[in-house]
Amino acid sequence: MNIEEVKSFLDEIITHRRQLHQIPEVGLELPKTKEYITSKLKEFGLEFKECGHGLVVDFGEPPYVAIRADMDALPLQELNDVPYKSKHEGKMHACGHDAHAAVLLTLAHYLSQNKPKKGVRLLFQPGEEGHFGAVDMIKNGVHEGVEVIIGGHVGTIGQGEAPEGAVLSKKGPFMAAADEFKVRFVGKGGHGSSPHETLDPIVAAASFINTVYIHRSRELRQTHPVVITVARVSSGTTHNVIPEEALLQGTVRTLFEDDRKFIAKRLEELAKSIANMFRMKVEFEYMWGYDSLHNTPDVVDEIKSISEEIGAVFVELPEPVMGAEDFSYYLKERPGAFFFVNTANKEKGIIHPNHSAYFDVDEEKLWIPLAIFIRFLERHGRL
Amino acid sequence: MNIEEVKSFLDEIITHRRQLHQIPEVGLELPKTKEYITSKLKEFGLEFKECGHGLVVDFGEPPYVAIRADMDALPLQELNDVPYKSKHEGKMHACGHDAHAAVLLTLAHYLSQNKPKKGVRLLFQPGEEGHFGAVDMIKNGVHEGVEVIIGGHVGTIGQGEAPEGAVLSKKGPFMAAADEFKVRFVGKGGHGSSPHETLDPIVAAASFINTVYIHRSRELRQTHPVVITVARVSSGTTHNVIPEEALLQGTVRTLFEDDRKFIAKRLEELAKSIANMFRMKVEFEYMWGYDSLHNTPDVVDEIKSISEEIGAVFVELPEPVMGAEDFSYYLKERPGAFFFVNTANKEKGIIHPNHSAYFDVDEEKLWIPLAIFIRFLERHGRL
Amino acid sequence: MNIEEVKSFLDEIITHRRQLHQIPEVGLELPKTKEYITSKLKEFGLEFKECGHGLVVDFGEPPYVAIRADMDALPLQELNDVPYKSKHEGKMHACGHDAHAAVLLTLAHYLSQNKPKKGVRLLFQPGEEGHFGAVDMIKNGVHEGVEVIIGGHVGTIGQGEAPEGAVLSKKGPFMAAADEFKVRFVGKGGHGSSPHETLDPIVAAASFINTVYIHRSRELRQTHPVVITVARVSSGTTHNVIPEEALLQGTVRTLFEDDRKFIAKRLEELAKSIANMFRMKVEFEYMWGYDSLHNTPDVVDEIKSISEEIGAVFVELPEPVMGAEDFSYYLKERPGAFFFVNTANKEKGIIHPNHSAYFDVDEEKLWIPLAIFIRFLERHGRL
Amino acid sequence: MNIEEVKSFLDEIITHRRQLHQIPEVGLELPKTKEYITSKLKEFGLEFKECGHGLVVDFGEPPYVAIRADMDALPLQELNDVPYKSKHEGKMHACGHDAHAAVLLTLAHYLSQNKPKKGVRLLFQPGEEGHFGAVDMIKNGVHEGVEVIIGGHVGTIGQGEAPEGAVLSKKGPFMAAADEFKVRFVGKGGHGSSPHETLDPIVAAASFINTVYIHRSRELRQTHPVVITVARVSSGTTHNVIPEEALLQGTVRTLFEDDRKFIAKRLEELAKSIANMFRMKVEFEYMWGYDSLHNTPDVVDEIKSISEEIGAVFVELPEPVMGAEDFSYYLKERPGAFFFVNTANKEKGIIHPNHSAYFDVDEEKLWIPLAIFIRFLERHGRL
Repeated sequence: MNIEEVKSFLDEIITHRRQLHQIPEVGLELPKTKEYITSKLKEFGLEFKECGHGLVVDFGEPPYVAIRADMDALPLQELNDVPYKSKHEGKMHACGHDAHAAVLLTLAHYLSQNKPKKGVRLLFQPGEEGHFGAVDMIKNGVHEGVEVIIGGHVGTIGQGEAPEGAVLSKKGPFMAAADEFKVRFVGKGGHGSSPHETLDPIVAAASFINTVYIHRSRELRQTHPVVITVARVSSGTTHNVIPEEALLQGTVRTLFEDDRKFIAKRLEELAKSIANMFRMKVEFEYMWGYDSLHNTPDVVDEIKSISEEIGAVFVELPEPVMGAEDFSYYLKERPGAFFFVNTANKEKGIIHPNHSAYFDVDEEKLWIPLAIFIRFLERHGRL
Repeated sequence: MNIEEVKSFLDEIITHRRQLHQIPEVGLELPKTKEYITSKLKEFGLEFKECGHGLVVDFGEPPYVAIRADMDALPLQELNDVPYKSKHEGKMHACGHDAHAAVLLTLAHYLSQNKPKKGVRLLFQPGEEGHFGAVDMIKNGVHEGVEVIIGGHVGTIGQGEAPEGAVLSKKGPFMAAADEFKVRFVGKGGHGSSPHETLDPIVAAASFINTVYIHRSRELRQTHPVVITVARVSSGTTHNVIPEEALLQGTVRTLFEDDRKFIAKRLEELAKSIANMFRMKVEFEYMWGYDSLHNTPDVVDEIKSISEEIGAVFVELPEPVMGAEDFSYYLKERPGAFFFVNTANKEKGIIHPNHSAYFDVDEEKLWIPLAIFIRFLERHGRL
Repeated sequence: MNIEEVKSFLDEIITHRRQLHQIPEVGLELPKTKEYITSKLKEFGLEFKECGHGLVVDFGEPPYVAIRADMDALPLQELNDVPYKSKHEGKMHACGHDAHAAVLLTLAHYLSQNKPKKGVRLLFQPGEEGHFGAVDMIKNGVHEGVEVIIGGHVGTIGQGEAPEGAVLSKKGPFMAAADEFKVRFVGKGGHGSSPHETLDPIVAAASFINTVYIHRSRELRQTHPVVITVARVSSGTTHNVIPEEALLQGTVRTLFEDDRKFIAKRLEELAKSIANMFRMKVEFEYMWGYDSLHNTPDVVDEIKSISEEIGAVFVELPEPVMGAEDFSYYLKERPGAFFFVNTANKEKGIIHPNHSAYFDVDEEKLWIPLAIFIRFLERHGRL
Repeated sequence: MNIEEVKSFLDEIITHRRQLHQIPEVGLELPKTKEYITSKLKEFGLEFKECGHGLVVDFGEPPYVAIRADMDALPLQELNDVPYKSKHEGKMHACGHDAHAAVLLTLAHYLSQNKPKKGVRLLFQPGEEGHFGAVDMIKNGVHEGVEVIIGGHVGTIGQGEAPEGAVLSKKGPFMAAADEFKVRFVGKGGHGSSPHETLDPIVAAASFINTVYIHRSRELRQTHPVVITVARVSSGTTHNVIPEEALLQGTVRTLFEDDRKFIAKRLEELAKSIANMFRMKVEFEYMWGYDSLHNTPDVVDEIKSISEEIGAVFVELPEPVMGAEDFSYYLKERPGAFFFVNTANKEKGIIHPNHSAYFDVDEEKLWIPLAIFIRFLERHGRL
């Protein structure tokens, strides 16, 4: 790989990124985004196929080295005042998937000029933001014939801990499973001066909050990364009426399936025990989010070596990141690794976190993921 | 007193009550209500004077035996379909003060025909429903020259425990002081997956709830009637964002000033200790409502005797009522007693509690308070 | 009744009291105490009969006016240095039952000289201190033929609130039912660094403590006198071993059977719900003590009148006393009343509370209960 | 290194180990143990010096590769029935330090025959079991001139997860800091029926327990391994006496100093806030144990390679071990690594955990640490 050659593709990446940035779409159905990508692929003389709601570009025969980019946006109103600002009211590429798709599209262009010697598969995935886009493509067999898969994520990452332009990853457990729960205690309301005639849901709510944190501190392996947060409690409207119900909501973040299933089971048991204790009813709902993401250690070692080869700082994170990513599902099927690229730039004011209405990426750094992908293909004998 | 003569005034009571029922007014300013009452007083050839926002009719010289009626209504839309339905949108005599004023007005009529031998004072009081109407009149000296004061309250009272038409009261502590408190814990919000970067106000709220009930069970004399209720807790809006603040509201009901002041002080201390414990800020507000109402034992004995004389069942309540009434302020100045008359009538469907949009009184029973007042005046040498 | 005549019996009361004080006996079997009493009764020419473990002296035929004295002592080493100090190691009349029996014995003497016109029954009862002596005598029919029963209790009572020599009582609910509970949470012990391999009984204990006070503050009528106290918690022996078990003990004081039964049921339910919540076992035990004591209002009025007649201050207590007394069982069978006599004397240093190893009574005041009994018999046509 | 040659030293290791096993000594002063070791060193013709309460054997000049063995025992009565059973009443080598010292002594013998080309330092350390023996030697400069240090620990380790004979270690944070805390809430005791006259320490204890677990779940980085355990709560002796005091004890295990200091500070603040909240006093004590142990990643990689070279299974632990070890203090001064050797043998019944009175080691495996040490010296150019 000629690093200068790779860097010469930066302008193209930026062009694609800005085009995609202006037409953000949410969920699994991304007609305009896919229209842009497929029109370019056609320009490059490349064939592609639909795979679920996503797109696949194959070079050569299996076994494939696979590279994935997600391409969906968030339901958020952009507040940046930039020439390439979102043209879709209430939608914004505030998580950098526009950059991911632009890099992968540029890689496709590169590969159209530098034919791989062996199988390579590019995945343009929709619906990463909570819509299980990866699962959609796996159901349609996107992992078949794949021997290893990698993907990257840009953003304002590792601020203060990792330098700008750094590549970050971790062997094994890397990103969390992120689930959600909802509890509704249904007591019996009444006058504030006659609690004995009521079944007070507020004390059930307070007991639940306390018990959740007892559970987290006593019942789980204390060396495992686990977050349980009750982020909402709502009951009553005024000072002297004991309400009928109390609503609680929260999030659960885990790295290991055993912890996750145990917590889901125990939270339900705790809610039911407390309802039983206070003689009331309870509705409990546990909403399973993405599975946790576990990187194959050897592939992380490769990403580390490659990063150093291309002159990027590599940071091996000592602990997992508690956010979630549906790239996890590919890694349940095949070896591979996911990594971050810190595209913040303090000088340019690019400091807002992912999912902020002010989010942006330092486009000058987008050659980094491209270089990693190309070098990875070389190491695996594809180039 | 000739009981038949008294009962012959029932029609007049009903007429006044229905007129007043149609023109409910809220608070301290009651122009139409007072217009109706004063026009009648003039018809009866009686003089009256303004006292604060209320009216006073005096017969003879001090010392006075005083009788009080409140005359304000509630901000409530009447749902009864009766000929005398409220004509004021969103206002309703849902607590029977129309009946109280009607009885007192009829008593004025009676006294215009049966001149008292010694001083009698009739009080038409506004703003009982949370507006401190009694305090307003006392500030204007209404209690000066008064040697004893009584007042009654109609309603759907003692259902199941007291028969319809019963008179109910209690010596000493009879009705509660009813106060209100508000607590706002101000922490630091953040992402649900990073609680260590936040100061979670929800755990402060849960701790406060628990500690309030520890306080009630441990720090107060357990033989005293006390209700402390946290009736509202509100913090957060969704499952994965730790909120900035938590709001709690509640009510405190006490019979003794020592308990009341101690609770007000302790709730504030508890809120501040918990805020301190969790390194956050707190705003605490305690809103003092009406003082508790303590009947003079001997006067209750009189009401009991009188009730039996006029053929009404008298129920001496074994415990105080945890509602509040600003008649308490008269009893802090002078001896006297307050009593209830159960004006429910199951057969007629008059079963809805006070403050209900379906509240009504069995008018056929309104001779009872009139008879009690007249007989009380007789016993005190006024008639 | 000639009050001077009554007072002339004071020396005799004191003699009996000092004799009995030296031979304290505990429980239902009181051979020496009964030997002393029966020998005196024989001296007075009176017949008596055994009734369960107690003694009964009847005058005339039923219906009887009954007067009861208890006569058992406490398992306590007396620390007073008085000529009449206890001669029984580890036993002491530290609750004044010696005085009670002495007064009743003197009354028997009085009645042997002043023959009652109608039926009178004197009850010498054992085992009041937790041994259900009253129940023992009732099982043997002691209440049959009785129309009214009274009893008194001396002691250091109402200090600061009632003057020395005052008679104190209350209509209706007067003394509490006093029960006991024990909870043992059986979890699974282990190393302090591996809580997830254990079932930690300490968090179950803490949850139980909190929930008991939520129960007391929310589920019970807040105008009722109720005390629930967790007075013991014990779990673990060192800093780094999670224990197998946690033990809790406490007391429950109530005035109403509904509250009492509800609490007993709820405490068991709470303990079981918490054990279930934390996946452990629990042993729950509720030990029923004496029933609550309810005085007949009219008889209290009589005690009040009599007190005033004999020149004693009468204090009508505004609230019940949370101690227990098995006189309650007589009042479940027959009308009657129980009262206290404040036999403290600050000047003489008689200030120690009942059940203290320094307890004593001001013997000069013991004519008061005697006078009350004699006057009561007169009012009921017995003398 | 000739592995067969190394294995030929096994008999010597076993001999030393059995001799040392019979003369266990506790703490910093180990006269008999040191007498045995020094006599052998003299036999081998080696010089040694005292260093604090430990012994040091140097070969060549600095820089040294250092190898450490601890040699103290536990205050425990051995329950094994073996020919080499402890001869010291109430003392036992129940943690395998006899084996550690035996291996190091044998290594000294080996090195007396195979002279190192460059500096080697052997450390015989006392007082590892809570007596800060490592700190004692460091204070005396034992780390000066050392460029890298390693040490191993035998035991029944990784049962079920690691095969017998496996070598286990982890890069970075490997073993915990283990501290202890004690809290005494000093309230005001009284009768169980009058909680309002007391300051109940039991509710303070329950609140502290709950709040500790809120702290662990909310205030700490949830990806860090942390254990906080309240392992003891003790207050009260019977059912109806509210006690004066409540005592709590617990342990804190951390891997990072920031967590550790923060917890120590916060536990004290929590205890004081709760005492303040309940108007009582509190005594808080935090007893600092050993610092956490962090392995140098590269040295762990070496141990891994060496293990594989000598035919042992190497297990890289995914999580730290929450036990403590004062080897941590060497690693705060110099690079190095600590590792475990699983010396369990199910077939021989050697299954009891370290610190058990039935603990033993499969002596046949003791050539493994010796081989690791020798190979490590070779890799570092010492042999």
